[in-house]
Amino acid sequence: MHTHTHTHTNKRDTVVCLVSGGMDSAVCASIAAAQYDLAFLHANYGQRTELRELHCFHLLASHFGAKHRLVLDLAHFKQIGGSSLLEGDEEVPKVDMNASIGHHIPSTYVPFRNGILLAIAASWAEVLGAKKIFLGAVMQDSSGYPDCRPEFMLAMNQAISAGTKPNTQIEIETPLIHLTKKQIVEQGRILNTPFELTYSCYQHNDFACGACESCVLRLRAFLQAGDKDPIVYQSCVDIHKA
Amino acid sequence: MHTHTHTHTNKRDTVVCLVSGGMDSAVCASIAAAQYDLAFLHANYGQRTELRELHCFHLLASHFGAKHRLVLDLAHFKQIGGSSLLEGDEEVPKVDMNASIGHHIPSTYVPFRNGILLAIAASWAEVLGAKKIFLGAVMQDSSGYPDCRPEFMLAMNQAISAGTKPNTQIEIETPLIHLTKKQIVEQGRILNTPFELTYSCYQHNDFACGACESCVLRLRAFLQAGDKDPIVYQSCVDIHKA
Repeated sequence: MHTHTHTHTNKRDTVVCLVSGGMDSAVCASIAAAQYDLAFLHANYGQRTELRELHCFHLLASHFGAKHRLVLDLAHFKQIGGSSLLEGDEEVPKVDMNASIGHHIPSTYVPFRNGILLAIAASWAEVLGAKKIFLGAVMQDSSGYPDCRPEFMLAMNQAISAGTKPNTQIEIETPLIHLTKKQIVEQGRILNTPFELTYSCYQHNDFACGACESCVLRLRAFLQAGDKDPIVYQSCVDIHKA
Repeated sequence: MHTHTHTHTNKRDTVVCLVSGGMDSAVCASIAAAQYDLAFLHANYGQRTELRELHCFHLLASHFGAKHRLVLDLAHFKQIGGSSLLEGDEEVPKVDMNASIGHHIPSTYVPFRNGILLAIAASWAEVLGAKKIFLGAVMQDSSGYPDCRPEFMLAMNQAISAGTKPNTQIEIETPLIHLTKKQIVEQGRILNTPFELTYSCYQHNDFACGACESCVLRLRAFLQAGDKDPIVYQSCVDIHKA
Protein backbone atom coordinates (compact mmCIF):
# COMPACT_ATOMS: atom_id res chain seq x y z
CA MET A 1 0.00 0.00 0.00
CA HIS A 2 1.35 3.38 -1.02
CA THR A 3 -0.43 6.19 0.74
CA HIS A 4 2.49 8.61 1.11
CA THR A 5 2.56 11.51 -1.33
CA HIS A 6 5.49 13.06 -3.16
CA THR A 7 7.14 15.77 -1.11
CA HIS A 8 10.19 16.32 -3.33
CA THR A 9 8.40 17.51 -6.44
CA ASN A 10 5.07 18.98 -7.51
CA LYS A 11 4.92 16.92 -10.68
CA ARG A 12 3.35 13.53 -10.13
CA ASP A 13 4.04 10.52 -12.32
CA THR A 14 1.18 9.26 -14.46
CA VAL A 15 -0.07 5.70 -14.20
CA VAL A 16 -2.54 3.78 -16.32
CA CYS A 17 -5.48 2.42 -14.29
CA LEU A 18 -7.62 -0.37 -15.69
CA VAL A 19 -11.12 0.46 -14.47
CA SER A 20 -13.97 -1.96 -15.16
CA GLY A 21 -16.42 -0.09 -12.97
CA GLY A 22 -16.55 -2.81 -10.33
CA MET A 23 -15.65 -2.46 -6.66
CA ASP A 24 -12.16 -3.91 -7.01
CA SER A 25 -11.10 -1.52 -9.75
CA ALA A 26 -12.52 1.43 -7.75
CA VAL A 27 -10.50 0.52 -4.64
CA CYS A 28 -7.44 -0.04 -6.84
CA ALA A 29 -7.96 3.44 -8.35
CA SER A 30 -8.24 4.91 -4.84
CA ILE A 31 -4.82 3.47 -4.01
CA ALA A 32 -3.28 4.80 -7.23
CA ALA A 33 -4.89 8.23 -6.78
CA ALA A 34 -3.09 8.75 -3.47
CA GLN A 35 0.24 8.95 -5.28
CA TYR A 36 -0.17 9.41 -9.03
CA ASP A 37 -1.92 11.24 -11.84
CA LEU A 38 -4.37 8.87 -13.45
CA ALA A 39 -4.96 7.67 -17.00
CA PHE A 40 -8.21 5.66 -16.87
CA LEU A 41 -8.61 2.77 -19.31
CA HIS A 42 -11.84 0.84 -19.88
CA ALA A 43 -12.83 -1.86 -22.34
CA ASN A 44 -16.24 -2.65 -23.77
CA TYR A 45 -15.97 -6.23 -24.86
CA GLY A 46 -19.55 -7.18 -25.56
CA GLN A 47 -20.36 -8.29 -22.01
CA ARG A 48 -24.02 -8.22 -20.93
CA THR A 49 -23.56 -5.29 -18.57
CA GLU A 50 -21.41 -3.23 -20.92
CA LEU A 51 -23.45 -0.01 -20.77
CA ARG A 52 -23.76 0.05 -17.02
CA GLU A 53 -20.03 -0.60 -16.55
CA LEU A 54 -19.13 2.19 -18.99
CA HIS A 55 -21.40 4.57 -17.10
CA CYS A 56 -19.65 3.68 -13.82
CA PHE A 57 -16.26 4.10 -15.50
CA HIS A 58 -17.06 7.71 -16.42
CA LEU A 59 -18.52 8.47 -12.98
CA LEU A 60 -15.35 7.10 -11.38
CA ALA A 61 -13.08 8.97 -13.82
CA SER A 62 -14.81 12.23 -12.90
CA HIS A 63 -14.72 11.43 -9.18
CA PHE A 64 -10.97 10.79 -9.28
CA GLY A 65 -10.21 13.65 -11.69
CA ALA A 66 -8.51 11.35 -14.21
CA LYS A 67 -6.23 13.32 -16.59
CA HIS A 68 -6.78 10.91 -19.48
CA ARG A 69 -9.61 8.54 -20.43
CA LEU A 70 -9.49 5.82 -23.06
CA VAL A 71 -12.45 3.57 -23.85
CA LEU A 72 -11.77 0.64 -26.13
CA ASP A 73 -14.34 -1.31 -28.11
CA LEU A 74 -13.05 -4.84 -28.19
CA ALA A 75 -15.82 -6.49 -30.14
CA HIS A 76 -13.43 -9.29 -31.07
CA PHE A 77 -13.95 -10.81 -27.65
CA LYS A 78 -17.43 -11.58 -28.91
CA GLN A 79 -16.11 -13.00 -32.19
CA ILE A 80 -13.67 -15.20 -30.28
CA GLY A 81 -16.36 -16.38 -27.86
CA GLY A 82 -15.64 -19.02 -25.26
CA SER A 83 -17.33 -17.35 -22.27
CA SER A 84 -20.87 -17.27 -20.90
CA LEU A 85 -20.33 -13.58 -20.05
CA LEU A 86 -20.48 -12.84 -23.76
CA GLU A 87 -23.10 -15.22 -25.09
CA GLY A 88 -26.55 -13.73 -25.20
CA ASP A 89 -28.58 -16.88 -24.74
CA GLU A 90 -26.64 -18.78 -22.14
CA GLU A 91 -27.59 -17.80 -18.59
CA VAL A 92 -24.89 -16.55 -16.26
CA PRO A 93 -24.70 -19.25 -13.56
CA LYS A 94 -26.46 -18.50 -10.26
CA VAL A 95 -24.71 -19.35 -6.99
CA ASP A 96 -25.96 -19.29 -3.39
CA MET A 97 -24.43 -17.27 -0.56
CA ASN A 98 -22.63 -20.27 0.95
CA ALA A 99 -21.19 -21.61 -2.29
CA SER A 100 -17.49 -22.33 -2.53
CA ILE A 101 -16.10 -20.02 -5.22
CA GLY A 102 -12.60 -19.93 -6.65
CA HIS A 103 -11.70 -23.61 -6.90
CA HIS A 104 -12.59 -24.10 -10.55
CA ILE A 105 -12.42 -22.04 -13.72
CA PRO A 106 -15.92 -20.61 -14.13
CA SER A 107 -17.74 -20.43 -17.46
CA THR A 108 -17.58 -16.63 -17.22
CA TYR A 109 -13.84 -16.86 -17.97
CA VAL A 110 -12.86 -14.82 -21.04
CA PRO A 111 -9.70 -16.46 -22.37
CA PHE A 112 -6.59 -14.43 -21.52
CA ARG A 113 -8.61 -11.27 -20.95
CA ASN A 114 -6.08 -9.69 -18.61
CA GLY A 115 -3.32 -10.57 -21.07
CA ILE A 116 -5.05 -8.58 -23.80
CA LEU A 117 -5.98 -5.67 -21.51
CA LEU A 118 -2.48 -5.41 -20.06
CA ALA A 119 -0.92 -5.51 -23.54
CA ILE A 120 -3.13 -2.61 -24.63
CA ALA A 121 -2.46 -0.77 -21.37
CA ALA A 122 1.28 -1.22 -21.94
CA SER A 123 0.96 0.29 -25.41
CA TRP A 124 -0.87 3.33 -24.03
CA ALA A 125 1.53 3.59 -21.08
CA GLU A 126 4.50 3.71 -23.45
CA VAL A 127 2.92 6.57 -25.41
CA LEU A 128 2.00 8.50 -22.25
CA GLY A 129 5.32 7.83 -20.54
CA ALA A 130 3.40 6.19 -17.68
CA LYS A 131 5.50 4.18 -15.27
CA LYS A 132 2.90 1.79 -13.93
CA ILE A 133 -0.28 -0.06 -14.83
CA PHE A 134 -2.71 -0.53 -11.93
CA LEU A 135 -4.99 -3.54 -12.16
CA GLY A 136 -7.49 -4.60 -9.50
CA ALA A 137 -6.97 -8.34 -10.01
CA VAL A 138 -7.85 -10.50 -6.99
CA MET A 139 -6.54 -14.02 -6.82
CA GLN A 140 -8.14 -15.59 -3.80
CA ASP A 141 -11.84 -15.60 -2.98
CA SER A 142 -12.67 -14.25 -6.40
CA SER A 143 -12.24 -16.76 -9.18
CA GLY A 144 -10.05 -19.41 -10.69
CA TYR A 145 -9.06 -17.23 -13.65
CA PRO A 146 -5.46 -18.10 -14.58
CA ASP A 147 -4.72 -14.53 -15.68
CA CYS A 148 -5.44 -13.17 -12.17
CA ARG A 149 -2.50 -14.96 -10.56
CA PRO A 150 0.75 -13.32 -9.42
CA GLU A 151 2.79 -15.73 -11.59
CA PHE A 152 0.99 -14.35 -14.61
CA MET A 153 1.63 -10.73 -13.56
CA LEU A 154 5.37 -11.45 -13.18
CA ALA A 155 5.55 -13.11 -16.59
CA MET A 156 3.55 -10.30 -18.22
CA ASN A 157 5.88 -7.72 -16.65
CA GLN A 158 8.78 -9.52 -18.30
CA ALA A 159 7.01 -9.61 -21.65
CA ILE A 160 6.21 -5.88 -21.49
CA SER A 161 9.78 -5.09 -20.53
CA ALA A 162 11.21 -7.21 -23.37
CA GLY A 163 8.73 -5.88 -25.94
CA THR A 164 8.94 -2.12 -25.39
CA LYS A 165 11.65 0.48 -26.01
CA PRO A 166 14.83 0.12 -23.92
CA ASN A 167 14.13 3.34 -21.99
CA THR A 168 10.50 2.41 -21.28
CA GLN A 169 9.93 1.11 -17.78
CA ILE A 170 6.43 -0.07 -17.02
CA GLU A 171 5.46 -2.14 -14.03
CA ILE A 172 2.14 -3.85 -13.37
CA GLU A 173 0.81 -3.10 -9.88
CA THR A 174 -1.88 -5.33 -8.41
CA PRO A 175 -2.32 -3.98 -4.88
CA LEU A 176 -5.40 -6.14 -4.20
CA ILE A 177 -4.11 -9.45 -5.48
CA HIS A 178 -3.59 -11.07 -2.07
CA LEU A 179 -6.58 -9.47 -0.34
CA THR A 180 -9.92 -11.09 0.39
CA LYS A 181 -13.08 -9.35 -0.82
CA LYS A 182 -13.77 -8.41 2.81
CA GLN A 183 -10.35 -6.75 3.09
CA ILE A 184 -11.03 -4.88 -0.16
CA VAL A 185 -14.22 -3.41 1.30
CA GLU A 186 -12.28 -2.41 4.44
CA GLN A 187 -9.52 -0.87 2.33
CA GLY A 188 -12.09 1.07 0.36
CA ARG A 189 -13.68 2.37 3.56
CA ILE A 190 -10.29 3.71 4.72
CA LEU A 191 -9.68 5.40 1.36
CA ASN A 192 -13.24 6.71 0.92
CA THR A 193 -13.78 4.70 -2.25
CA PRO A 194 -17.13 5.76 -3.79
CA PHE A 195 -18.73 2.28 -3.80
CA GLU A 196 -22.04 3.89 -4.76
CA LEU A 197 -20.53 4.63 -8.20
CA THR A 198 -19.54 1.01 -8.85
CA TYR A 199 -21.35 -2.01 -10.27
CA SER A 200 -20.43 -5.68 -10.18
CA CYS A 201 -23.38 -7.69 -11.51
CA TYR A 202 -22.74 -9.98 -14.49
CA GLN A 203 -26.42 -10.39 -15.34
CA HIS A 204 -28.47 -7.20 -15.52
CA ASN A 205 -27.95 -3.59 -16.57
CA ASP A 206 -30.65 -1.95 -14.44
CA PHE A 207 -30.41 -3.43 -10.93
CA ALA A 208 -27.81 -5.87 -9.66
CA CYS A 209 -29.36 -9.35 -9.65
CA GLY A 210 -27.90 -10.38 -6.29
CA ALA A 211 -27.62 -13.99 -7.46
CA CYS A 212 -24.73 -14.26 -9.91
CA GLU A 213 -21.24 -15.16 -8.70
CA SER A 214 -20.05 -11.57 -8.82
CA CYS A 215 -23.05 -10.22 -6.85
CA VAL A 216 -22.75 -12.97 -4.24
CA LEU A 217 -19.04 -12.32 -3.69
CA ARG A 218 -19.75 -8.62 -3.31
CA LEU A 219 -22.70 -8.95 -0.95
CA ARG A 220 -20.81 -11.48 1.18
CA ALA A 221 -17.81 -9.12 1.38
CA PHE A 222 -19.89 -6.17 2.64
CA LEU A 223 -21.64 -8.49 5.11
CA GLN A 224 -18.32 -9.77 6.48
CA ALA A 225 -16.90 -6.25 6.71
CA GLY A 226 -19.99 -5.14 8.65
CA ASP A 227 -20.91 -2.58 5.99
CA LYS A 228 -23.94 -2.01 3.83
CA ASP A 229 -23.47 -2.15 0.06
CA PRO A 230 -24.78 1.23 -1.19
CA ILE A 231 -25.99 -0.02 -4.60
CA VAL A 232 -29.53 -1.21 -5.32
CA TYR A 233 -30.29 -4.91 -5.74
CA GLN A 234 -33.21 -6.54 -7.54
CA SER A 235 -34.51 -8.06 -4.28
CA CYS A 236 -35.05 -4.54 -2.82
CA VAL A 237 -36.92 -3.54 -5.97
CA ASP A 238 -39.08 -6.69 -5.75
CA ILE A 239 -39.94 -5.93 -2.12
CA HIS A 240 -41.04 -2.39 -3.00
CA LYS A 241 -43.11 -3.72 -5.90
CA ALA A 242 -44.84 -6.33 -3.69
CA MET B 1 11.69 -25.61 -40.57
CA HIS B 2 8.99 -28.24 -40.36
CA THR B 3 8.13 -29.67 -43.74
CA HIS B 4 7.38 -33.25 -42.71
CA THR B 5 3.71 -34.19 -42.54
CA HIS B 6 1.90 -36.31 -39.98
CA THR B 7 2.02 -39.99 -40.87
CA HIS B 8 0.47 -41.35 -37.68
CA THR B 9 -2.91 -39.69 -37.97
CA ASN B 10 -5.15 -38.02 -40.51
CA LYS B 11 -6.20 -35.29 -38.14
CA ARG B 12 -3.88 -32.31 -38.22
CA ASP B 13 -3.44 -29.91 -35.34
CA THR B 14 -4.75 -26.38 -35.82
CA VAL B 15 -2.48 -23.36 -35.45
CA VAL B 16 -3.28 -19.67 -35.38
CA CYS B 17 -1.42 -17.72 -38.08
CA LEU B 18 -1.07 -13.95 -37.81
CA VAL B 19 -1.31 -12.73 -41.39
CA SER B 20 -0.80 -9.05 -42.15
CA GLY B 21 -0.83 -9.58 -45.90
CA GLY B 22 2.88 -8.79 -46.29
CA MET B 23 5.55 -11.09 -47.72
CA ASP B 24 6.86 -12.24 -44.34
CA SER B 25 3.47 -13.39 -43.08
CA ALA B 26 2.81 -15.20 -46.39
CA VAL B 27 6.08 -17.16 -46.16
CA CYS B 28 5.35 -17.88 -42.50
CA ALA B 29 1.91 -19.20 -43.50
CA SER B 30 3.53 -21.40 -46.18
CA ILE B 31 5.68 -22.98 -43.47
CA ALA B 32 2.70 -23.55 -41.16
CA ALA B 33 0.54 -24.92 -44.00
CA ALA B 34 2.99 -27.76 -44.62
CA GLN B 35 2.11 -29.30 -41.28
CA TYR B 36 -1.04 -27.81 -39.76
CA ASP B 37 -4.62 -26.74 -40.33
CA LEU B 38 -4.74 -22.95 -40.34
CA ALA B 39 -6.73 -20.37 -38.41
CA PHE B 40 -5.91 -17.03 -40.07
CA LEU B 41 -5.96 -13.90 -37.91
CA HIS B 42 -5.74 -10.34 -39.21
CA ALA B 43 -6.00 -6.95 -37.56
CA ASN B 44 -7.18 -3.67 -39.02
CA TYR B 45 -5.63 -1.07 -36.80
CA GLY B 46 -6.20 2.12 -38.70
CA GLN B 47 -3.00 1.96 -40.72
CA ARG B 48 -2.90 3.83 -44.05
CA THR B 49 -2.93 0.68 -46.14
CA GLU B 50 -5.62 -1.12 -44.14
CA LEU B 51 -7.94 -1.95 -47.04
CA ARG B 52 -5.23 -3.32 -49.28
CA GLU B 53 -3.80 -5.48 -46.51
CA LEU B 54 -7.24 -6.88 -45.67
CA HIS B 55 -7.77 -7.73 -49.33
CA CYS B 56 -4.45 -9.60 -49.40
CA PHE B 57 -5.36 -11.39 -46.16
CA HIS B 58 -8.50 -12.84 -47.74
CA LEU B 59 -6.69 -13.79 -50.95
CA LEU B 60 -4.04 -15.59 -48.89
CA ALA B 61 -6.65 -17.28 -46.66
CA SER B 62 -8.37 -18.66 -49.77
CA HIS B 63 -5.08 -19.70 -51.34
CA PHE B 64 -4.05 -21.65 -48.23
CA GLY B 65 -7.54 -23.03 -47.55
CA ALA B 66 -7.63 -21.60 -44.02
CA LYS B 67 -10.27 -23.38 -41.87
CA HIS B 68 -10.96 -20.30 -39.76
CA ARG B 69 -10.66 -16.56 -40.41
CA LEU B 70 -10.86 -13.81 -37.82
CA VAL B 71 -10.55 -10.12 -38.69
CA LEU B 72 -10.25 -7.72 -35.78
CA ASP B 73 -10.93 -4.01 -35.85
CA LEU B 74 -8.49 -2.52 -33.40
CA ALA B 75 -9.40 1.12 -33.76
CA HIS B 76 -7.85 1.78 -30.36
CA PHE B 77 -4.41 1.73 -31.95
CA LYS B 78 -5.50 4.99 -33.55
CA GLN B 79 -6.77 6.37 -30.25
CA ILE B 80 -3.51 5.45 -28.57
CA GLY B 81 -1.40 6.98 -31.36
CA GLY B 82 2.35 7.17 -31.12
CA SER B 83 3.20 5.96 -34.63
CA SER B 84 3.52 7.64 -38.02
CA LEU B 85 1.87 4.52 -39.55
CA LEU B 86 -1.38 5.67 -38.01
CA GLU B 87 -1.33 9.43 -38.28
CA GLY B 88 -2.98 10.73 -41.39
CA ASP B 89 -0.99 13.91 -41.85
CA GLU B 90 2.51 12.84 -41.03
CA GLU B 91 4.36 11.39 -44.02
CA VAL B 92 5.79 7.89 -43.75
CA PRO B 93 9.57 8.45 -43.94
CA LYS B 94 11.20 7.78 -47.32
CA VAL B 95 14.50 5.87 -47.40
CA ASP B 96 16.88 5.17 -50.26
CA MET B 97 17.97 1.74 -51.43
CA ASN B 98 21.36 1.92 -49.69
CA ALA B 99 20.07 3.18 -46.36
CA SER B 100 21.01 1.36 -43.19
CA ILE B 101 17.79 0.04 -41.67
CA GLY B 102 17.30 -1.72 -38.38
CA HIS B 103 19.66 0.16 -36.09
CA HIS B 104 17.12 2.53 -34.59
CA ILE B 105 13.46 2.40 -33.64
CA PRO B 106 11.61 3.90 -36.59
CA SER B 107 8.68 6.29 -36.24
CA THR B 108 6.45 3.61 -37.81
CA TYR B 109 6.71 1.66 -34.53
CA VAL B 110 3.29 0.94 -33.01
CA PRO B 111 3.94 0.53 -29.29
CA PHE B 112 3.83 -3.13 -28.24
CA ARG B 113 1.85 -4.12 -31.33
CA ASN B 114 3.03 -7.72 -31.34
CA GLY B 115 2.26 -7.93 -27.62
CA ILE B 116 -1.35 -6.99 -28.28
CA LEU B 117 -1.69 -9.22 -31.36
CA LEU B 118 -0.14 -12.22 -29.62
CA ALA B 119 -2.39 -11.75 -26.58
CA ILE B 120 -5.48 -11.78 -28.82
CA ALA B 121 -4.09 -14.72 -30.80
CA ALA B 122 -3.57 -16.60 -27.53
CA SER B 123 -7.18 -15.96 -26.54
CA TRP B 124 -8.43 -17.33 -29.87
CA ALA B 125 -5.98 -20.24 -29.76
CA GLU B 126 -7.29 -21.26 -26.34
CA VAL B 127 -10.88 -21.31 -27.63
CA LEU B 128 -9.92 -23.26 -30.79
CA GLY B 129 -7.63 -25.65 -28.94
CA ALA B 130 -4.79 -24.52 -31.21
CA LYS B 131 -1.31 -25.55 -30.12
CA LYS B 132 0.75 -22.85 -31.78
CA ILE B 133 0.71 -19.24 -32.93
CA PHE B 134 2.73 -18.54 -36.08
CA LEU B 135 4.08 -15.02 -36.43
CA GLY B 136 6.30 -13.80 -39.28
CA ALA B 137 8.41 -11.51 -37.11
CA VAL B 138 11.89 -10.75 -38.47
CA MET B 139 14.52 -9.38 -36.16
CA GLN B 140 17.52 -8.54 -38.31
CA ASP B 141 17.49 -6.48 -41.50
CA SER B 142 13.91 -5.45 -40.85
CA SER B 143 13.53 -2.97 -38.06
CA GLY B 144 14.46 -2.07 -34.57
CA TYR B 145 11.03 -2.93 -33.15
CA PRO B 146 11.55 -4.29 -29.62
CA ASP B 147 8.58 -6.64 -29.93
CA CYS B 148 10.18 -8.49 -32.87
CA ARG B 149 13.06 -9.87 -30.79
CA PRO B 150 13.44 -13.50 -29.64
CA GLU B 151 13.74 -12.34 -26.00
CA PHE B 152 10.28 -10.87 -26.29
CA MET B 153 8.84 -14.06 -27.83
CA LEU B 154 10.26 -16.14 -24.97
CA ALA B 155 8.82 -13.79 -22.37
CA MET B 156 5.44 -13.67 -24.12
CA ASN B 157 5.36 -17.49 -24.26
CA GLN B 158 5.81 -17.51 -20.50
CA ALA B 159 3.06 -14.94 -20.01
CA ILE B 160 0.64 -16.93 -22.20
CA SER B 161 1.49 -20.14 -20.38
CA ALA B 162 0.99 -18.51 -16.95
CA GLY B 163 -2.22 -16.73 -17.97
CA THR B 164 -4.20 -19.55 -19.65
CA LYS B 165 -5.84 -22.73 -18.34
CA PRO B 166 -3.48 -25.39 -16.95
CA ASN B 167 -4.25 -27.81 -19.80
CA THR B 168 -3.77 -25.16 -22.49
CA GLN B 169 -0.42 -25.38 -24.25
CA ILE B 170 0.27 -22.65 -26.77
CA GLU B 171 3.66 -21.91 -28.24
CA ILE B 172 4.65 -18.92 -30.36
CA GLU B 173 6.52 -19.97 -33.51
CA THR B 174 8.57 -17.37 -35.38
CA PRO B 175 10.27 -19.41 -38.14
CA LEU B 176 11.61 -16.30 -39.91
CA ILE B 177 13.01 -14.47 -36.93
CA HIS B 178 16.68 -15.13 -37.68
CA LEU B 179 16.40 -14.93 -41.47
CA THR B 180 17.39 -12.02 -43.69
CA LYS B 181 14.78 -10.63 -46.10
CA LYS B 182 16.78 -12.26 -48.93
CA GLN B 183 16.52 -15.65 -47.22
CA ILE B 184 12.78 -15.13 -46.74
CA VAL B 185 12.35 -14.61 -50.49
CA GLU B 186 14.40 -17.77 -51.12
CA GLN B 187 12.34 -19.71 -48.58
CA GLY B 188 9.14 -18.50 -50.24
CA ARG B 189 10.41 -19.63 -53.65
CA ILE B 190 11.03 -23.15 -52.29
CA LEU B 191 7.54 -23.29 -50.74
CA ASN B 192 5.74 -21.66 -53.69
CA THR B 193 4.57 -18.73 -51.59
CA PRO B 194 2.16 -16.63 -53.69
CA PHE B 195 4.08 -13.35 -53.44
CA GLU B 196 1.74 -11.86 -56.07
CA LEU B 197 -1.03 -11.93 -53.41
CA THR B 198 1.00 -9.95 -50.87
CA TYR B 199 1.55 -6.24 -50.23
CA SER B 200 4.13 -4.50 -48.09
CA CYS B 201 3.90 -0.75 -48.77
CA TYR B 202 3.27 1.53 -45.77
CA GLN B 203 2.24 4.52 -47.90
CA HIS B 204 -0.31 3.84 -50.64
CA ASN B 205 -3.32 1.58 -51.16
CA ASP B 206 -3.27 1.39 -54.97
CA PHE B 207 0.33 0.78 -56.03
CA ALA B 208 3.31 0.18 -53.78
CA CYS B 209 5.28 3.44 -53.51
CA GLY B 210 8.70 1.80 -53.79
CA ALA B 211 10.18 4.45 -51.50
CA CYS B 212 9.07 3.75 -47.93
CA GLU B 213 11.17 1.60 -45.63
CA SER B 214 9.00 -1.45 -46.13
CA CYS B 215 9.06 -1.20 -49.95
CA VAL B 216 12.82 -0.64 -50.00
CA LEU B 217 13.47 -3.68 -47.81
CA ARG B 218 11.25 -5.81 -50.03
CA LEU B 219 12.71 -4.64 -53.35
CA ARG B 220 16.24 -5.06 -52.03
CA ALA B 221 15.42 -8.62 -50.87
CA PHE B 222 14.09 -9.70 -54.28
CA LEU B 223 17.11 -8.08 -55.97
CA GLN B 224 19.54 -9.91 -53.70
CA ALA B 225 17.72 -13.21 -54.20
CA GLY B 226 17.90 -12.73 -57.96
CA ASP B 227 14.10 -12.71 -58.30
CA LYS B 228 11.58 -10.25 -59.63
CA ASP B 229 8.95 -8.96 -57.22
CA PRO B 230 5.62 -9.81 -58.92
CA ILE B 231 3.64 -6.87 -57.50
CA VAL B 232 3.24 -3.50 -59.26
CA TYR B 233 5.17 -0.43 -58.07
CA GLN B 234 4.35 3.23 -58.63
CA SER B 235 7.52 3.72 -60.73
CA CYS B 236 6.24 1.21 -63.33
CA VAL B 237 2.92 3.04 -63.44
CA ASP B 238 4.70 6.38 -63.87
CA ILE B 239 6.77 4.98 -66.76
CA HIS B 240 3.63 3.75 -68.56
CA LYS B 241 1.95 7.12 -68.02
CA ALA B 242 4.96 9.05 -69.42
